[in-house]
Amino acid sequence: MLNQALDHARANRGRYLNQLFDFLRIPSISTQAEHKPDVQRAAEWVAADMRRVGLTNVQVVPTAGNPIVYGEWLGAGEEAPTVLIYGHYDVQPVDPLELWQSPPFEPQIRDGLIYARGVSDDKGQMFIHIKAIESMLSANGRLPVNVKLIFEGEEEIGSINLEAFVLSHREMLAADVSLVSDTGMITPDQPLIVYGLRGMCYMEFRIKGPKRDLHSGGYGGTVYNPAQLVAEIIAALHDEKGTVTIPGFYDRVRPLTDEERRAINSAPYSLEQWQSETGLRKPWGEPEYTLHERIGARPTCEVNGIWGGWQGEGGKTIIPAEAGAKISMRLVPDQDPQEIARLFAEFVRERVPDDMQVQINDLAGGWWAITPLDSPAMRAASRAYEATWGVPPVFAREGGSIPIVATFQKELNAPAVLMGFGLRDDAAHAPNERFREDHFYKGIDTVIHYFHYLAEQR
Amino acid sequence: MLNQALDHARANRGRYLNQLFDFLRIPSISTQAEHKPDVQRAAEWVAADMRRVGLTNVQVVPTAGNPIVYGEWLGAGEEAPTVLIYGHYDVQPVDPLELWQSPPFEPQIRDGLIYARGVSDDKGQMFIHIKAIESMLSANGRLPVNVKLIFEGEEEIGSINLEAFVLSHREMLAADVSLVSDTGMITPDQPLIVYGLRGMCYMEFRIKGPKRDLHSGGYGGTVYNPAQLVAEIIAALHDEKGTVTIPGFYDRVRPLTDEERRAINSAPYSLEQWQSETGLRKPWGEPEYTLHERIGARPTCEVNGIWGGWQGEGGKTIIPAEAGAKISMRLVPDQDPQEIARLFAEFVRERVPDDMQVQINDLAGGWWAITPLDSPAMRAASRAYEATWGVPPVFAREGGSIPIVATFQKELNAPAVLMGFGLRDDAAHAPNERFREDHFYKGIDTVIHYFHYLAEQR
Repeated sequence: MLNQALDHARANRGRYLNQLFDFLRIPSISTQAEHKPDVQRAAEWVAADMRRVGLTNVQVVPTAGNPIVYGEWLGAGEEAPTVLIYGHYDVQPVDPLELWQSPPFEPQIRDGLIYARGVSDDKGQMFIHIKAIESMLSANGRLPVNVKLIFEGEEEIGSINLEAFVLSHREMLAADVSLVSDTGMITPDQPLIVYGLRGMCYMEFRIKGPKRDLHSGGYGGTVYNPAQLVAEIIAALHDEKGTVTIPGFYDRVRPLTDEERRAINSAPYSLEQWQSETGLRKPWGEPEYTLHERIGARPTCEVNGIWGGWQGEGGKTIIPAEAGAKISMRLVPDQDPQEIARLFAEFVRERVPDDMQVQINDLAGGWWAITPLDSPAMRAASRAYEATWGVPPVFAREGGSIPIVATFQKELNAPAVLMGFGLRDDAAHAPNERFREDHFYKGIDTVIHYFHYLAEQR
Repeated sequence: MLNQALDHARANRGRYLNQLFDFLRIPSISTQAEHKPDVQRAAEWVAADMRRVGLTNVQVVPTAGNPIVYGEWLGAGEEAPTVLIYGHYDVQPVDPLELWQSPPFEPQIRDGLIYARGVSDDKGQMFIHIKAIESMLSANGRLPVNVKLIFEGEEEIGSINLEAFVLSHREMLAADVSLVSDTGMITPDQPLIVYGLRGMCYMEFRIKGPKRDLHSGGYGGTVYNPAQLVAEIIAALHDEKGTVTIPGFYDRVRPLTDEERRAINSAPYSLEQWQSETGLRKPWGEPEYTLHERIGARPTCEVNGIWGGWQGEGGKTIIPAEAGAKISMRLVPDQDPQEIARLFAEFVRERVPDDMQVQINDLAGGWWAITPLDSPAMRAASRAYEATWGVPPVFAREGGSIPIVATFQKELNAPAVLMGFGLRDDAAHAPNERFREDHFYKGIDTVIHYFHYLAEQR
């Protein structure tokens, strides 16, 4: 059964790749309103492929925002485990467009890498699951486990409507374990299973000062410049060591145990790798924590965007009427996203004088998650990786945030296995996003193995 | 002679206004390369009108950048004074375009105000001189003084090629006094002659950190965020009182004498006026200097623009690879623009770690100027204002910068009379720029009076 499915997957690689390319060509950018029709089109495309593959009860479910695509195959029987598979078909914006070597929505393979927006985050990875299921159903007419697939179109805008959907479809989504491929590997030779994810609090603030842009010759030196105030607030968010200075920010942070620190620091990620990925020499940040700890186990506060005044060619001598910034904070156990949003807003508000206005927007938030290492699902995942890649995976906490993982754990009691096939330098969210072609194929093999071992573990 | 000219000017107001509208319709934005043909067109338009008016030797002189328009009328004889008139036909950019109540290049009169980009700064004001000359030549066939007119198309980008032109045309431009209308009045009832102007040093810096935008989940807390560094540098430029902290910035600042402070502070500009113009309650800045002193007599350092990372709708979780800012400093006697540029660059550079890159551009610079109050030209200007507006002008130092005024003084020995007809709330450089229609007409009358009294003073 296993080998037939693997053979079928290998024989159909070219076809699967072509299908992925069709999927990648849809510019389903969820952060930009003008791409709403593309997001809808991507959802329909995914649903059509799921139906073709043999999944049942396939639906494109409207939400207040972008649709959720659902499908299932429940023929393995009540004794077999049920796996809830999650992914997202929406992608990040593409600018600065001029830095892309090939157009972001015209996939291209160069040196074994597939280049396209969303290929690593998360279209390439979510498509792996559909193709693993297709391979097993085509080769064997059945799967060894029951599967439920849920793909959303709002991951890049904070999964706004996903939690409500999960809460209102508990029965439909009931599962023993969840499976998510939206993370990465250490290197192409070293798989990784993420057992911890950071939460997130994404804030935006806009400060308005004078009622209009003022001539800096006529008013300079007499007006509190909003761009300067934005800069002062950002500069005040960290002390000179890189510690976040928002009062109360660290209050609920669970201290790392010695065992955790050992596990985190033993992950084979090196300073040299960080240097090659970033192009920098010296890591920045909290000196009392190692590079590994800063990435996965410590909360952060980053400027994602800043703006105000004249940004074009040459000079314009104005005091801008308005300036602003986008700031996201990654959260760790036991920080509360809503509490952090409140503390951040207070921090900003108390720095804005009475006669200026500030607008603070909470753009997205989500909880951190931790998954137990000793569950049957984790063991099956470990075996699946070892069978495909020849080495056992390492386990680590990850810097990124997938809020739905916390929801699956808390609300469905379906602990997540985070089986990622991306790489840290896939340039997710940046120009020239890429995904290794061989990881697409090996990802399919790994998921086939996973379903097989998971059924055995029972 | 005087009355015939004034009568002619009054009889032709409608025609003059229509001509001004034609001039305003040309989008001669010098800071944006795509408007280069419009800048050229504006120069040709001005030259054509000067020829029609009866000026001689009219030329559109090419430079390395935008052309300089020159014309003269030298029929008053060698005994009569020669006036060098300066203005600029280029304008500022228009964004944010959505804040304009009428299109910036479709002039419209509402409530006695002409709305259009450049109407106050400086097309409306420079056109006043051409129409004053037209009125005198048409009514009398002659002027009481010799005039030379020089109009540039690069004032808004730092008058890059003007100084070289002046230095290489000393003989052609030789004059007893220069006349510039690119400043403002206190109120519509209170004219102002500016006797001091600030200099300028306009800098831009761009900081590059990681080799590409990084995912803030995967790298946050380990990378010195370029947007944060830009914010920290801007925040460091002032102390909490508003004093500029660049080492050496104030070293050459000539202390204000008690007499100067009295003169500056007696200008009828009030806190209430500042409040109504800015929409703010509390002036910001150096507490040991008054509002008047901060505007005209103290050096400043203002953020004109700041940028980095994601500025669009929603959130993008990146550490931007690059961020930057535009900063302009207004300079007073005896600060040296080149020295200040060097001090600023050192201030920025020493804050950028070795493994990040910084690019620092000196976008524009110019000297401050001070004109003696007791010259015949100043007395004639004062009489001209009093004859037209019914009150004598006040004399003040101005916050803005007109570098060419320093060049006229230093290189041509032609001290400048700054005869401005704009108002502080004309929104120069901002959306909905405007100029009072009656000031356009009264400006023409004032300049006619000025030429008359200047000839008498001799």
